[in-house]
Amino acid sequence: MDQLAQTLARIAADMAAAPDLGRVADYIPALARIDPAQFGIAIVLADGSVHVAGDADVAFSIQSISKVFTLTMALGKAGADLWQRVGREPSGSAFNSIVQLENEQGVPRNPFINAGAIAVADVVLGRGDPREAIGDVLRFVRALAADADGPDEGIVIDREVAASEAVTGHRNAALAHFMRAYGNMADVEGALSLYFHSCAIAMSCRQLAMAGRYLMAGGINPATGHSVVSAQRARRINALMLTCGHYDGSGEFAFRVGIPGKSGVGGGILAVVPGVASIGVWSPGLNARGNSLRASLALEQLSEAMGWSVFTAR
Amino acid sequence: MDQLAQTLARIAADMAAAPDLGRVADYIPALARIDPAQFGIAIVLADGSVHVAGDADVAFSIQSISKVFTLTMALGKAGADLWQRVGREPSGSAFNSIVQLENEQGVPRNPFINAGAIAVADVVLGRGDPREAIGDVLRFVRALAADADGPDEGIVIDREVAASEAVTGHRNAALAHFMRAYGNMADVEGALSLYFHSCAIAMSCRQLAMAGRYLMAGGINPATGHSVVSAQRARRINALMLTCGHYDGSGEFAFRVGIPGKSGVGGGILAVVPGVASIGVWSPGLNARGNSLRASLALEQLSEAMGWSVFTAR
Amino acid sequence: MDQLAQTLARIAADMAAAPDLGRVADYIPALARIDPAQFGIAIVLADGSVHVAGDADVAFSIQSISKVFTLTMALGKAGADLWQRVGREPSGSAFNSIVQLENEQGVPRNPFINAGAIAVADVVLGRGDPREAIGDVLRFVRALAADADGPDEGIVIDREVAASEAVTGHRNAALAHFMRAYGNMADVEGALSLYFHSCAIAMSCRQLAMAGRYLMAGGINPATGHSVVSAQRARRINALMLTCGHYDGSGEFAFRVGIPGKSGVGGGILAVVPGVASIGVWSPGLNARGNSLRASLALEQLSEAMGWSVFTAR
Amino acid sequence: MDQLAQTLARIAADMAAAPDLGRVADYIPALARIDPAQFGIAIVLADGSVHVAGDADVAFSIQSISKVFTLTMALGKAGADLWQRVGREPSGSAFNSIVQLENEQGVPRNPFINAGAIAVADVVLGRGDPREAIGDVLRFVRALAADADGPDEGIVIDREVAASEAVTGHRNAALAHFMRAYGNMADVEGALSLYFHSCAIAMSCRQLAMAGRYLMAGGINPATGHSVVSAQRARRINALMLTCGHYDGSGEFAFRVGIPGKSGVGGGILAVVPGVASIGVWSPGLNARGNSLRASLALEQLSEAMGWSVFTAR
Repeated sequence: MDQLAQTLARIAADMAAAPDLGRVADYIPALARIDPAQFGIAIVLADGSVHVAGDADVAFSIQSISKVFTLTMALGKAGADLWQRVGREPSGSAFNSIVQLENEQGVPRNPFINAGAIAVADVVLGRGDPREAIGDVLRFVRALAADADGPDEGIVIDREVAASEAVTGHRNAALAHFMRAYGNMADVEGALSLYFHSCAIAMSCRQLAMAGRYLMAGGINPATGHSVVSAQRARRINALMLTCGHYDGSGEFAFRVGIPGKSGVGGGILAVVPGVASIGVWSPGLNARGNSLRASLALEQLSEAMGWSVFTAR
Repeated sequence: MDQLAQTLARIAADMAAAPDLGRVADYIPALARIDPAQFGIAIVLADGSVHVAGDADVAFSIQSISKVFTLTMALGKAGADLWQRVGREPSGSAFNSIVQLENEQGVPRNPFINAGAIAVADVVLGRGDPREAIGDVLRFVRALAADADGPDEGIVIDREVAASEAVTGHRNAALAHFMRAYGNMADVEGALSLYFHSCAIAMSCRQLAMAGRYLMAGGINPATGHSVVSAQRARRINALMLTCGHYDGSGEFAFRVGIPGKSGVGGGILAVVPGVASIGVWSPGLNARGNSLRASLALEQLSEAMGWSVFTAR
Repeated sequence: MDQLAQTLARIAADMAAAPDLGRVADYIPALARIDPAQFGIAIVLADGSVHVAGDADVAFSIQSISKVFTLTMALGKAGADLWQRVGREPSGSAFNSIVQLENEQGVPRNPFINAGAIAVADVVLGRGDPREAIGDVLRFVRALAADADGPDEGIVIDREVAASEAVTGHRNAALAHFMRAYGNMADVEGALSLYFHSCAIAMSCRQLAMAGRYLMAGGINPATGHSVVSAQRARRINALMLTCGHYDGSGEFAFRVGIPGKSGVGGGILAVVPGVASIGVWSPGLNARGNSLRASLALEQLSEAMGWSVFTAR
Repeated sequence: MDQLAQTLARIAADMAAAPDLGRVADYIPALARIDPAQFGIAIVLADGSVHVAGDADVAFSIQSISKVFTLTMALGKAGADLWQRVGREPSGSAFNSIVQLENEQGVPRNPFINAGAIAVADVVLGRGDPREAIGDVLRFVRALAADADGPDEGIVIDREVAASEAVTGHRNAALAHFMRAYGNMADVEGALSLYFHSCAIAMSCRQLAMAGRYLMAGGINPATGHSVVSAQRARRINALMLTCGHYDGSGEFAFRVGIPGKSGVGGGILAVVPGVASIGVWSPGLNARGNSLRASLALEQLSEAMGWSVFTAR
């Protein structure tokens, strides 16, 4: 894996030298003061080896990346019935747009736009208590990231970020109420609380790459050998990440990088090369579409250098 | 390749027995009278072997599948400048919607919705004569489908279909004039003519699978060893097919089939398994999204059986 | 006024015989069980005389008609600054659409669509207590409807309707949260409460016609001689009623009836012939646009018979 | 009429001193070079007297004001059947928007947005020859403006403007083709030609005020005593002018001026005070909504000073 080590070193150097850092999301106060110069990357290969560069062990707010984990939980709970409540098509509009919801009678286009993720949170919550559900999500992510020592207790929920979102998240509240009006939301307050807290999970690139292994490995957590989801479901989650994982920049990401990925406004991206690698990348500054500028660039270089695009003729 | 032969036989049998044939497109009179019971499939593998089932040698109107070939030509002509005129994002609306064009100042979302393909046709046309440009497109497709005997002269333009579209294509004319109003269209009449004639190309599943080999093979036409496009460009065209190739059913196709594909309202689909296979499938009846009902189903079965999804952990 | 008496009698007879009663609004349970056969009309002329027919003294839920009264209060409180928060253009979409709000950054198109009226309620509320504000609105309407005996205490808030709306009004909650996200809403819960309670005011056609006198009389309450609003403001409220008072059926109402009017889903309409008459009409069944079917028809006949259209060459 | 003379003199002086002239429409080359400092106004009262100020006899391009005259002709030809093809509601969007057309299956919202006027032109044209139809429209307008000497032959079509629009009018061509796709347009080229030529009619404020007399006078041309349209139809055209006559600034115009009016991007406005006055005003500079800045302002002052708002308590 000399090639990977060299590639990572070069990418980290390039990113440190990148003139444009992008813009840190400022609508969540707790995120607005993050130092935009940070950059980290961690890669877990199929053989279990871990490769890192930069600030790979600095915790950041995963934000919308959490949607991958809550979707996985909701599918486990509701199975294919979930798709009665959420679509599977790219949205063609901003991540927090409400226009689409009205045009399609309260059914969000996919589970990775905000409305869709709130509906997914409602499924995960069921008739349960939001506090317990939040604990369940956290435990699930910790277990996904587990190593030989067990669940990764270093993964936590950043209470300040969660509170900050609850205060500023009026648009998400509008989405939830709107879906409620269409009968596609059981517990507005509970689902929003679960959504805000899931988005406020803080973890490092290394932890994120560990947590994403099941999507690399056909649904199996390599640490335990246990199946998290079926192989078919893992493929399908990857497909959704490729077509919808970067909001209205998903097509661009597929075009340039060619790997399933899910971004968050905290600047992180979880990317998956099926059968090959699970990748966590983070740099706080965002591009115009709300995706991390340097994390996207790093993944483009990585994919090109390693031939990791799923569209590569092998 | 016993497995492939068995799989094809089973799929052909299943499709012959499928109770729902979908609805043949009726807005183009020449297409409305096609027998919906037909079904054909042809697969060219990386080793050059060809595998067929059903009506694999019946010519059909490729319609929007032609957008893959004209995009390839336009990229050859304009390079990355093409992306000044056409976007790369899924549209989130119907293939012939004009709403998006107004919202985004005359720049179509991607080259596979009608507006985008008409802009692509305008690039291919340049300041040239539409008749000559149509000849160029036809020659290009014939060359792509070439075997040891040279270009496949059996691929033709169905004049009746082309004329029929020119008559009924008012919506496409609206799209072209609209882009012209935004300065994103040089020759409305010429581009429409080239577009209509490209869509009217008639070829069989076998010919289609042959023509798609360069997308399977990293941009190289295996018959000649010559590069049609660069390996990077081949990956990117595949990425566009995966995210945008089935109109507003693209997410669903990626979710279920997991292979880059481009459909046409004539009932055909060109699908590409990078490094593995180029596939032409055809069945005239369409689903609610305007994609072939049975061709989609056949590809889902094929992808599942052969493990061909690009999201498979290899 | 023989002509008016005869006209009213004829209209009441025609309406009793009308074959189509329309559809009673069913999304507010308390309204769904109203007998659709009821019809009432009351007219107060400039000379103070009152003319009635049918169920003119049966109380009904005025719903959106209350928007005229809260708008009047908000203009008194904020003056022209109100127009920083609410537009003055017809909306071209349904009364509860959220699409427009997103397209125009949280500024509702006019004070008579739901979003606009909730913003108006937020202005009326200010930093105050919702309960007190509700009392203020009720007192204001009672004073407008006052006769020689003083404020009309028979006008009340129907608590069952108010509670019913609070429960079913998720779409209005979405609108309020959405405006809050754009900084155009101070107190989501308070404004919604004030809005729901204002809509739940119950009064009869006679009381409604009395309450509308100031809009007929250049802003002056004829019972007291006191100015409610300036003459200019009265004209402008009438203009808003004409262009925006019937949701997406406003153009049709102006075309057929030609009189400023404001409808409510309870089946009532307040109509104003400047200088001539203030009219309350009620019939519970609605047309496809959500306006009372028979009240609209009655006003069309009345306007035609009396030459009351503001577009009449006098 | 001393008051009117004084008011006109004051308005002309105010407009001459107005610091902001607005922006001359620049998308039609022949209009872009007009001197924006010009201002004219002409008023014909019910008694036939004519009152003018400023550049009242300078010819200008009436543009969309022509839509009033072609609507009148189309109603004469098709009667109420016209409303199968064109709606009567304000649009809530820009004058040349195509979004609404898609949302409402090719039926324009009203006859005063471009799409609606092109549909109206198609009705006026019928199966006829566009050149003859253009002659008919011109003769109709000349007859409306007639005085004792007969039709006003000074009213002409500005061929340069007509040609200029045919060249730049791709957006209108898109609208026409789009309606054709929905079956709501018989002759795309013919209707566009008639539309462009009608818009290119050049006349002065005085001629315009004369031509609008029938809308002031209950449908009767006072010069001849003949009925142009029924009184009901005159009222209804006035209603449409009030609700839809200033594109997406119609609500604002009704709010401020309170008089039916129709504006054109040439800077003219035809305004009608039913029973009282027909008014032509012109100043080339436009406001943000595409309506003449100073003509709107002049009408607001005039309406206020003379008490001409239709919402005035008489």
